[in-house]
Amino acid sequence: MAEKEISQAVIGRLPRYFRYLGELKERGIERISSQELSDIMKVTASQIRQDFNNFGGFGQQGYGYNVEYLYDEISKILGIDKQHSLIIIGVGHLGQAIANYTNFTRRGFVFKGAFDTNPELYGTKIKDVEVRPIEEIEDFVIKNKTEIAVLTVPKDQAKSLAARLSKCGIKAIWNFAHVDLDVPENVQVENVHLSDSLMKLSYNINRYENKTKK
Amino acid sequence: MAEKEISQAVIGRLPRYFRYLGELKERGIERISSQELSDIMKVTASQIRQDFNNFGGFGQQGYGYNVEYLYDEISKILGIDKQHSLIIIGVGHLGQAIANYTNFTRRGFVFKGAFDTNPELYGTKIKDVEVRPIEEIEDFVIKNKTEIAVLTVPKDQAKSLAARLSKCGIKAIWNFAHVDLDVPENVQVENVHLSDSLMKLSYNINRYENKTKK
Repeated sequence: MAEKEISQAVIGRLPRYFRYLGELKERGIERISSQELSDIMKVTASQIRQDFNNFGGFGQQGYGYNVEYLYDEISKILGIDKQHSLIIIGVGHLGQAIANYTNFTRRGFVFKGAFDTNPELYGTKIKDVEVRPIEEIEDFVIKNKTEIAVLTVPKDQAKSLAARLSKCGIKAIWNFAHVDLDVPENVQVENVHLSDSLMKLSYNINRYENKTKK
Repeated sequence: MAEKEISQAVIGRLPRYFRYLGELKERGIERISSQELSDIMKVTASQIRQDFNNFGGFGQQGYGYNVEYLYDEISKILGIDKQHSLIIIGVGHLGQAIANYTNFTRRGFVFKGAFDTNPELYGTKIKDVEVRPIEEIEDFVIKNKTEIAVLTVPKDQAKSLAARLSKCGIKAIWNFAHVDLDVPENVQVENVHLSDSLMKLSYNINRYENKTKK
């Protein structure tokens, strides 16, 4: 596979390819052309070929891609052929929703620790994982070589937690707090800003109404 | 404001501008230059000017933008100067997390109805809203002129629900189910695919490790 910097836009599309390929695999389909993939995914075949060319093209022949090979290759590129340990900080509804996603476990993300500031929750369990005080994060991350921290805390706590996590060697933060985090370049951040997403939806309602009013 | 089709990439950045402007407003700051905004938001000043030029430029003078004016204009563009009624379908942890986000209420998204397939939940309340059987969705949406449906159901239920919602006049679906929906063009869809986001994070961990190994 050619080593070069791939744009985040291409990366952002890989999980969707992976999802569709997983479904094809489950249905027992062995080969698929870029045109067929284009039809089911509703992106152009040329976009698919361009995206895949970033990774050497995945050996498409005249008769298309090998579904299982493509699935496995994309899973390696996404790093989900390995296990990743994950802790959840903030075990409100959102934290619990994430802890309970069986899909994440299937993809190799293993839920190892839960932390909260509410003493009433200490010692209670979420999916067999005990909730601990937020003060114990550093110890836990270092001892357990935790890779990913999921932040589902209010925004006023998120920045200082991100700084603490960065110092004790966390590799990545999955940030649900409604604030941008400032971390060193060895810590990867992926934001899920739900308000931003809802506003985008509201924009598109508005735009459609303005368009059809005319 | 000039009427033209704005790219979804630009739209995707508007909520973030809105968030930073809200913070500036709260801090009592009245004017800001594109350079100052660039420094705090970590995007180039040229990007900011280009983005704003899509909406007529927001009247920047030599001494910068009027924060309150810019905030109000962006809120109008995003359609959050009006109220939007919202129902949540699927009241597991994720549905409850969304119902409880006070931030959404502040932005004019009003939680009006909750639906689930679990009979044990019927009649229980989430934030003063009674949980109803999923069969009642059509009646409710029509009677209450509901605009937005939040789908936090398993993926095998999402597609048929999207079809039902489209038929009874919903304007938008905020989709958390891990599947792409196929709806008519008068229904706006915004997806939050959490697995996709987590895989992107995993990719970036992998990429960073490969980069530093060399």
